[in-house]
Amino acid sequence: MYEVREAPIGVFDSGVGGLTVVREIMRQIPQERIVYFGDTARVPYGTKSRDTVIRYSRQIVRFLKTRNVKAIVIACNTASAYALETLQEETDLPMIGVVKPGARVASRASTGGKIGVIATEATVGSHIYREYIQGLKPESKVFEKACPLFVSLVEEGWLKDPITEAVAQRYLQEMKELHIDTLILGCTHYPLIQSTVRKVIGEEVALINPAYETAIELRELLKREKIDNQEHHKIEKNPYEFFVSDAAERFKTFANSILDYDITNTRQINIEEY
Amino acid sequence: MYEVREAPIGVFDSGVGGLTVVREIMRQIPQERIVYFGDTARVPYGTKSRDTVIRYSRQIVRFLKTRNVKAIVIACNTASAYALETLQEETDLPMIGVVKPGARVASRASTGGKIGVIATEATVGSHIYREYIQGLKPESKVFEKACPLFVSLVEEGWLKDPITEAVAQRYLQEMKELHIDTLILGCTHYPLIQSTVRKVIGEEVALINPAYETAIELRELLKREKIDNQEHHKIEKNPYEFFVSDAAERFKTFANSILDYDITNTRQINIEEY
Repeated sequence: MYEVREAPIGVFDSGVGGLTVVREIMRQIPQERIVYFGDTARVPYGTKSRDTVIRYSRQIVRFLKTRNVKAIVIACNTASAYALETLQEETDLPMIGVVKPGARVASRASTGGKIGVIATEATVGSHIYREYIQGLKPESKVFEKACPLFVSLVEEGWLKDPITEAVAQRYLQEMKELHIDTLILGCTHYPLIQSTVRKVIGEEVALINPAYETAIELRELLKREKIDNQEHHKIEKNPYEFFVSDAAERFKTFANSILDYDITNTRQINIEEY
Repeated sequence: MYEVREAPIGVFDSGVGGLTVVREIMRQIPQERIVYFGDTARVPYGTKSRDTVIRYSRQIVRFLKTRNVKAIVIACNTASAYALETLQEETDLPMIGVVKPGARVASRASTGGKIGVIATEATVGSHIYREYIQGLKPESKVFEKACPLFVSLVEEGWLKDPITEAVAQRYLQEMKELHIDTLILGCTHYPLIQSTVRKVIGEEVALINPAYETAIELRELLKREKIDNQEHHKIEKNPYEFFVSDAAERFKTFANSILDYDITNTRQINIEEY
């Protein structure tokens, strides 16, 4: 049992966006080790089909198991929407995604029951946020909108920019007219343009970043399963390991802009072999 | 020899953009059969590394060979930039990319020797257009600019749009100040926003779409190798076959917006198996 408690948590994403979830885990449960995998050779997932996303996620879970992780976090909304249920059935490890925690906190935050969700085409097409939210509060109205350009704008680094603002104006116009009271940032890239989204949608709308709640849910899960690391501050020098499926340079640059942690040990693997 | 002449031409791209090249081949050599493969499960290539793009392209060539193609066109600037040379060495089939034809026609078109290239990060990073152009005309000045948002804007369908125009203004500003006389649309998506690019860059700049010249080069190659199909207009009912690596629906929609041809027989394959 001692060994399991010290084992790392596996976190994966289609690319770099999941590092916003890693950042929250580092903040909230700093005593835990993390093995991160970003599928940079096949990114993005948000425009791809359910079958493809499940196949890719299954390979990643197989890889993470070779790193002896004790639990898995799917730090990608699209993979959470499409693959979590299937992978939970196939895998004996505790596993959570970002969608349920995001839906839960949005339900609690919403005062008027009008909740907006911005996400990838895949996540929106799955209607999974709507399903979860209405499972918690059946009277909720949920408006979903795919915002595919946001990922490219974040990756271009145009975080506070008139063009990004114009794109946000167009994507969010309908939700403004519908007077939503809560908006879920349903893609891990979106928290990086939170201030632009805030400016466009207005001060009165609650913005929900599922990453925060996911880290809390992970902490509770580890405790409940009695696999949380209790050796506070006794983790070794490199508690975080980063793996990618495509060359690491671009990843490192982006990672260092998100994390207060120097990504020195990023390694590349061929995920198709898993 | 008879059978080889009737064999199809293999054309591949990271996704749908290569259909702009297929369109030109259909127009200029209508008597040829085509097998198209779009790697929609791993698209885009333009942000990925040389090694990954070569590995993916190699798998695609293996797949196309199972379809008994007589020649291969790499209808993707990034794959042409990174993988053409390696694949030509490894493969016994005649093979061309889009970069050399694009560079050649730009050299001819340029009156003042100032040529701009807009393309993906990968193509720009390879400096392959500059290399080819300066190989043809050493005194040429070549200015390269990565325009990653253009692909997303095309896929969003915002072809003639104030936001696309604002993005083009920003990307092309420096080239305008440098007074380029010729501009290569160095990514197969870009011809779809040609009118917006034209509006921003001005009437006096020659816009080069490598697809057109690639189809001409292909026609000449087939003749030279004596593998051109001489049975004019005698091709069977379905002369064009389309394959993708991810679910075909999205592909069909986009394909039908590019081609004057009903994509009814698109099939999905698992490219990782090749």
